[in-house]
Amino acid sequence: MGRWQPEARTRLERAAMELFGERGFEQTTVAEIAARAGLTERTFFRHYADKREVLFGGSSGFSKLLMQSVADAPVGATPIDTIAAALATAGELFAERLGHARQRQRIIDAHADLQERELIKLASLAASLAGALRQRGVGDTAARLAAEAGVAVFKIAFDRWIEEHNAAPLSDIIRESLAELKAVTAGN
Amino acid sequence: MGRWQPEARTRLERAAMELFGERGFEQTTVAEIAARAGLTERTFFRHYADKREVLFGGSSGFSKLLMQSVADAPVGATPIDTIAAALATAGELFAERLGHARQRQRIIDAHADLQERELIKLASLAASLAGALRQRGVGDTAARLAAEAGVAVFKIAFDRWIEEHNAAPLSDIIRESLAELKAVTAGN
Repeated sequence: MGRWQPEARTRLERAAMELFGERGFEQTTVAEIAARAGLTERTFFRHYADKREVLFGGSSGFSKLLMQSVADAPVGATPIDTIAAALATAGELFAERLGHARQRQRIIDAHADLQERELIKLASLAASLAGALRQRGVGDTAARLAAEAGVAVFKIAFDRWIEEHNAAPLSDIIRESLAELKAVTAGN
Repeated sequence: MGRWQPEARTRLERAAMELFGERGFEQTTVAEIAARAGLTERTFFRHYADKREVLFGGSSGFSKLLMQSVADAPVGATPIDTIAAALATAGELFAERLGHARQRQRIIDAHADLQERELIKLASLAASLAGALRQRGVGDTAARLAAEAGVAVFKIAFDRWIEEHNAAPLSDIIRESLAELKAVTAGN
């Protein structure tokens, strides 16, 4: 421990994903995750509230990056383009993590309570994005619609990214899905 | 019992909502709901799996009506207009239930687990709507985007309907919110 402390979180995540893959999610205990990472349970709990949070631990960094991008968007940008650009930027966080994202999705798909947690995270992401748009002076309904539509685009793009063989980069699929949303809502 | 059996479900719902209002949601038991309705607990469980389901019991009828409307839409209708027309039609189910919808929302807003159940119902509604569009030959991504966008429109319109004083009919707010989504995604 000690020396590599800043990497503890990454090591715990890697150990957890290995064990989830080898033994299954339910069968894996926090004690086993900590042992595999060469760390104590106490260190585990300093980084994650429980083993489920290992699967969702990235969402706060993702969310922070999104809010920052929305706040930094050019003044004249439309709400939907602001959201889409932020999602494409934040999507780059996942660039090197396709294998991880696929494994994580397989675990979530197999557990109803994890699917619920995922829905809650997405709903709270949409609420934060709507708040960030309101801060930029966007009206309440337009802010909520752009945020919800943006999160839907992200979710659908993310699914395509992990499902397709040889998928394009996530950011490209996000931009493509946004274009498709625009076509769909334009009634084409 | 017996004679008014077809109304049992309605009586149970009314009794439950009265008691939730008087005593709070947690403090109300199924036994009390049944007693207030003049029915047995056994009858309660024939209609609802638990007291939470009283709050969500309308969702299957709503969902069925939606699917039917999508299936019956004119052949040339665009995916988003198909969804929006179906939501506006199904929205008429709520026409006489504004007071009920407001009380229900107050209870849900106060309980995290009920909010989760609401999110799950909406996600499964979006999945069903996407499936109904695919059945009409709409491509997978377009079907999912139109369904998710439609459910977002519905959710935001529903919130406005129950929050505003002297709100317009729900179906009108749905149509208005769809127009706003179209404007938002067109970048206006």
